[in-house]
Amino acid sequence: MKLSCIQENLHKGLQVVGRIARPGGSLPILSNILIKTEKGRLKLSATDLEIGISGYIGAKVEKEGALTVPARILIDCISMIQDKKINLEVDKETLSIKSEKYSTKIKGIAASEFPLIPQIKEKDTTSLAASIVRESISQVLIAPAIDESKPVLSGVCLKLGDKKIKIAATDSFRLSEKIINLEQETEKKEAVVPARTLSEVLRILTLTESSSVSIRLSENQIMFIIDSVEVVSRLIEGSFPEYESIIPKETETTSTLDASEFQNALKLCNLFAKETGGTIKLKIEKDKIIVSSSASLVGENTSTVLAQNEGPEVEISFNARFLLDVLGVISSPTVSLGVTGKFNPALIKIPRKNDFLYLIMPLKEG
Amino acid sequence: MKLSCIQENLHKGLQVVGRIARPGGSLPILSNILIKTEKGRLKLSATDLEIGISGYIGAKVEKEGALTVPARILIDCISMIQDKKINLEVDKETLSIKSEKYSTKIKGIAASEFPLIPQIKEKDTTSLAASIVRESISQVLIAPAIDESKPVLSGVCLKLGDKKIKIAATDSFRLSEKIINLEQETEKKEAVVPARTLSEVLRILTLTESSSVSIRLSENQIMFIIDSVEVVSRLIEGSFPEYESIIPKETETTSTLDASEFQNALKLCNLFAKETGGTIKLKIEKDKIIVSSSASLVGENTSTVLAQNEGPEVEISFNARFLLDVLGVISSPTVSLGVTGKFNPALIKIPRKNDFLYLIMPLKEG
Repeated sequence: MKLSCIQENLHKGLQVVGRIARPGGSLPILSNILIKTEKGRLKLSATDLEIGISGYIGAKVEKEGALTVPARILIDCISMIQDKKINLEVDKETLSIKSEKYSTKIKGIAASEFPLIPQIKEKDTTSLAASIVRESISQVLIAPAIDESKPVLSGVCLKLGDKKIKIAATDSFRLSEKIINLEQETEKKEAVVPARTLSEVLRILTLTESSSVSIRLSENQIMFIIDSVEVVSRLIEGSFPEYESIIPKETETTSTLDASEFQNALKLCNLFAKETGGTIKLKIEKDKIIVSSSASLVGENTSTVLAQNEGPEVEISFNARFLLDVLGVISSPTVSLGVTGKFNPALIKIPRKNDFLYLIMPLKEG
Repeated sequence: MKLSCIQENLHKGLQVVGRIARPGGSLPILSNILIKTEKGRLKLSATDLEIGISGYIGAKVEKEGALTVPARILIDCISMIQDKKINLEVDKETLSIKSEKYSTKIKGIAASEFPLIPQIKEKDTTSLAASIVRESISQVLIAPAIDESKPVLSGVCLKLGDKKIKIAATDSFRLSEKIINLEQETEKKEAVVPARTLSEVLRILTLTESSSVSIRLSENQIMFIIDSVEVVSRLIEGSFPEYESIIPKETETTSTLDASEFQNALKLCNLFAKETGGTIKLKIEKDKIIVSSSASLVGENTSTVLAQNEGPEVEISFNARFLLDVLGVISSPTVSLGVTGKFNPALIKIPRKNDFLYLIMPLKEG
């Protein structure tokens, strides 16, 4: 292999691709990045066997070839090169990186030992605006289960059909659902995507300036295409719970309040909620919500948030963290909280919007 | 105790004072902040028995009193209160914090159990511009020994006399010395200050907008006065090494080079210097310095930095980290490196300035 490329492009490409190459695993080659000439471009790939990410950058290819090199040192090295043009050359299993002021050699492992990253060759299932994908993923990613004892709950469910995509996740204590409306009808399909895959997509969307994201779904895999970057991931087997039936159509008490004041009151109360595992109490009165918590050894807090409330007064307890999670991912200045008595799931929505909801189970005692 | 004060002032005061109050030590009260009314102001104090920090903020005092409360929760709580005015009241061993929207109670420990923080009542030994103190501390603090096997080397030596202060630190592998010229003569004095004390002073200088720093020296203690903040610290016993004699008056080879290019070349080489404990080689040629390193398992790097060199060509090895440390704390665009053969200490200076020098021992082999 022999080629030249622009430092900035190579640096960016490596940043996008390289994070999932992690040292310390069972297979040393998984901490490497595969660099390979392909159709007059340089292809960079990394995989952890669950997710594979490939990116293409422009290059002047003199001689075809491929090698895998340790991701960490390659990324650090390229990021520090201050020359504009970089020449890459592979000699046996060594990559040499030359530019005006710097000359580096990095030892690698033959490309033939790198795992094959599958591709989905069928046509796109759908294509979405990048800004909507970014918002949707960040709003849903707060809810999947962290432990993987029930694998489907550690994933995010995508349900296509009826000219929309429903994206949902739940750890059985709370549920986050986002609906993206589509202009064109798609095939009816359902898939559970590992949460980690979506957080990689989110990371790549913030690194690139892509305006759209294409999605391809096959039986066992999903592929996201973001400009010249492809993220391929396995799907999680199993059926996602039929959650729609537990979402209340209406709630008895509905509060509308300032999101940042609510967030602040919760943070303050959360300081005194460690003893009780994060339990805080909301007292929904006529025109305000009183948030309170207490810790016998440390102290207590009561915060008042003005609110427009409809329906009966009620006292209800929640895990403060679960409320803070949702307030951290909505950009709306106000939020609505719907409650039906102290034992039924409560509903958080954005006023006058129907594309997002967050369902949260109350705690038994405050 | 009963008083009211401005949230912003209290928050800032707690940030300045609170960091040295650390939980988990042998004495639980050392994780608390002492709050106390004093001459119509509110005094905040914390100590770790080596360093004591006190700060004063304006307050409307209705009733005198004092209490100690856990620093972490008090700081977090005050930082989240979004009301302008805060009322503090002590009832037995509980502090209540009330403002328009929030009401908090924090349990504390009686003020009588808090260790006495000594004060130096004598007049100021000297007073310096804050900007000079900030620069000097950051330039010298790279050099003290981290382990405390030789206590004086874990400190910074202040030597007053001849209308200047010499500030120096060394871990016996490198030495950093800064000279501040004074307008007025001071008493001849020498003191070794714990490095941690100076890093607290540095931190406080970046938090406050003070334009000057007063210093008071007594037999066993030093006090820094930064606006309404007082930092008192014990001194380290023992004599600091007589380092002046090992500073070479002249060097055979002198290079002048771009500091940021040198820094970048060193960082890049340092990637390949882990196997050799950070050893990099400098080859000083006629008009350039070639920085190189190699690691048998990983790879190698050679970087070229253009330089104006006088004197014979020479090859010399250093610990890259020690060179990077000094390049990280000088703001000059160029730096000069003076070398006398490959075995003598090298000297880093800022061209056309005589107030700072950094002496560094070469390594035996590259």
